[in-house]
Amino acid sequence: MIVDGKDIKPIWLDEASKTVKVIDQRELPHRLVILDLNTVEKVVTAIKEMVVRGAPLLGVTAAYGIYVALASQSKDTRGEDFLRSSCRTIRAARPTAVNLSYAVDKVLAEVSGVSNLDERIVAAQRMAGELARTETENCKMIGQHGVGLIESISRKNKGRPVNILTHCNAGWLACIEYGTATAPIYKAYEKGIDVHVWVDETRPLNQGARLTAWELGKHGIRHTVITDNTGGHLMQHGLVDMVIVGTDRTTRNGDVANKIGTYLKALAARDNHIPFYVALPSSTFDWTLGDGLAQIPIETRDPDEIRYVQGLFENRIVRVLVPPANSPVANYAFDVTPARLVTGLITERGICKAEQADIRRLFHDKGAI
Amino acid sequence: MIVDGKDIKPIWLDEASKTVKVIDQRELPHRLVILDLNTVEKVVTAIKEMVVRGAPLLGVTAAYGIYVALASQSKDTRGEDFLRSSCRTIRAARPTAVNLSYAVDKVLAEVSGVSNLDERIVAAQRMAGELARTETENCKMIGQHGVGLIESISRKNKGRPVNILTHCNAGWLACIEYGTATAPIYKAYEKGIDVHVWVDETRPLNQGARLTAWELGKHGIRHTVITDNTGGHLMQHGLVDMVIVGTDRTTRNGDVANKIGTYLKALAARDNHIPFYVALPSSTFDWTLGDGLAQIPIETRDPDEIRYVQGLFENRIVRVLVPPANSPVANYAFDVTPARLVTGLITERGICKAEQADIRRLFHDKGAI
Repeated sequence: MIVDGKDIKPIWLDEASKTVKVIDQRELPHRLVILDLNTVEKVVTAIKEMVVRGAPLLGVTAAYGIYVALASQSKDTRGEDFLRSSCRTIRAARPTAVNLSYAVDKVLAEVSGVSNLDERIVAAQRMAGELARTETENCKMIGQHGVGLIESISRKNKGRPVNILTHCNAGWLACIEYGTATAPIYKAYEKGIDVHVWVDETRPLNQGARLTAWELGKHGIRHTVITDNTGGHLMQHGLVDMVIVGTDRTTRNGDVANKIGTYLKALAARDNHIPFYVALPSSTFDWTLGDGLAQIPIETRDPDEIRYVQGLFENRIVRVLVPPANSPVANYAFDVTPARLVTGLITERGICKAEQADIRRLFHDKGAI
Repeated sequence: MIVDGKDIKPIWLDEASKTVKVIDQRELPHRLVILDLNTVEKVVTAIKEMVVRGAPLLGVTAAYGIYVALASQSKDTRGEDFLRSSCRTIRAARPTAVNLSYAVDKVLAEVSGVSNLDERIVAAQRMAGELARTETENCKMIGQHGVGLIESISRKNKGRPVNILTHCNAGWLACIEYGTATAPIYKAYEKGIDVHVWVDETRPLNQGARLTAWELGKHGIRHTVITDNTGGHLMQHGLVDMVIVGTDRTTRNGDVANKIGTYLKALAARDNHIPFYVALPSSTFDWTLGDGLAQIPIETRDPDEIRYVQGLFENRIVRVLVPPANSPVANYAFDVTPARLVTGLITERGICKAEQADIRRLFHDKGAI
């Protein structure tokens, strides 16, 4: 995407130095810092500490992680065991997003047929690049399919802006380009539709306030940051026309794991008869799971992510302690929105209901059962 | 309440100096600072800037504000106009909590029958003190009526702790003693019932993380701070037995205005068949209003309360900027939970349904219609 006149992606392979580079998303919006991921340890740390985050981007990072594993293998010839342990560590770096495993499987399949190490490196690089291109294309298609929903609300609104609420960041920073939840919004903006986005700040790590607001602002799209508590009130007063969120893992029958708090917005949307859409590429489906509430593993993270809030103070990025230092804190990172609360899934192949049969209709050739 | 062995209240009149003193709640939990409210301007600023907050405490502060107005009147003899304008400013200092007007009316009625200024001052002081004592007594009774609900869950849980979720601070800091939502919790603790409180941090001003966690911690009550996004997930997984919140204004048919985000928790409670109670003294009822959603004024506050998060950094209390500096922000302070989502109201006279007839049954002699 274009930021301040420069084309930038959240991850790319620098061809000259053969180095994987990422935007350090912990520093946004106050600083745009680029990190090199030149060891598997750095890749895993970047995933765990949320230098990179968002389901599609996690997948692409995992794919590049295997490329890094193979490339570093060539230097110290640590062999097959190192590749296997790298894959294991990368898969397990975060538990909820299914894209890590999806991408590792994709790259492993590609390199498994090749025995020469140099060729394996080339194959991994090719597959990671292909995955990045596929996710980009998928996000583009999500935008094209989703924009119709916004257009139709715009027509009904007769000139009144279309107010879209989103939670967390399912923008290009979470993907490669366009984003998932934001793709229809970017597309609508491109088409001249008057859109305005309510941006949930998304505690504890404030990916909405820090990342989504930054993305939309850089793109010139009207938006307003709100606390996570606010969406219900806005919906009660007719100030939200639709909700679009992303997902970290969606089961075959349409249960949606996404950033903690998504479920509360889905409940408010239903209570106020507001459409609630989830945008996702097919890489985020987990065909092996049916009941999301019972089966999707929910990551718990460091309580200090809640205790301390990071922001800008006197031109430094610092973290301030909010509650009493000795109060216990629990940090659940995701929740599951049951399919019954989801109006529809916006995918690269079109919009379907959050129901096994309708998902299968679109993706039967991709593993949907 | 007892804090570190010292008996303290959020507001009191220092008899020796005849000065109204309050805990500056903006500084908690990191510093316990006492402020003097010796002019009407200081009273109004303390209310607006949330040095004091919480419906019952706002009422008591307003009452003492009239005492301060009369006491300062004696010095510069600004007369009746000054009293009238002071009452107007105090009433209007914050729009949602009805207790400001309730308390001003109470004190005005008391002083209106007295023409001598010195006697008026004494009357205002007496009435403010009486209001404080009444609110204390009411909170105590709320605790006695509400504890039965906790006891009955404890019996059903057969030894498993009773998990109670609360939003914002409806503790003694919001009242005088015991609190409203916390009164049944303190009472349960006193009776030896195993209680554990999920404390919503309550963005933007984090009254849950800062105040409720501090109160409960000082009292030795087990609690865990969570983001406002988390309650739904906990309820889905059987980790919440009941919700108790306070209210800033409740209509005669049981619609409840409370800190923004309360409505989302009420929706989640209903979706998971968890009882959702609102604790309030009768001073928080607004008998003049029926439809809360349409009629209760919702305060919007300074967007910087959301942009900047306050906390402790290197032993100083500082505020850090979270979103991009130029992103628009909207700060709605309250929302309305419709009566249909409220299991019951815990009042000083007992528990009633959030329905006009049942509220009237308890309070017909207090203005309920």
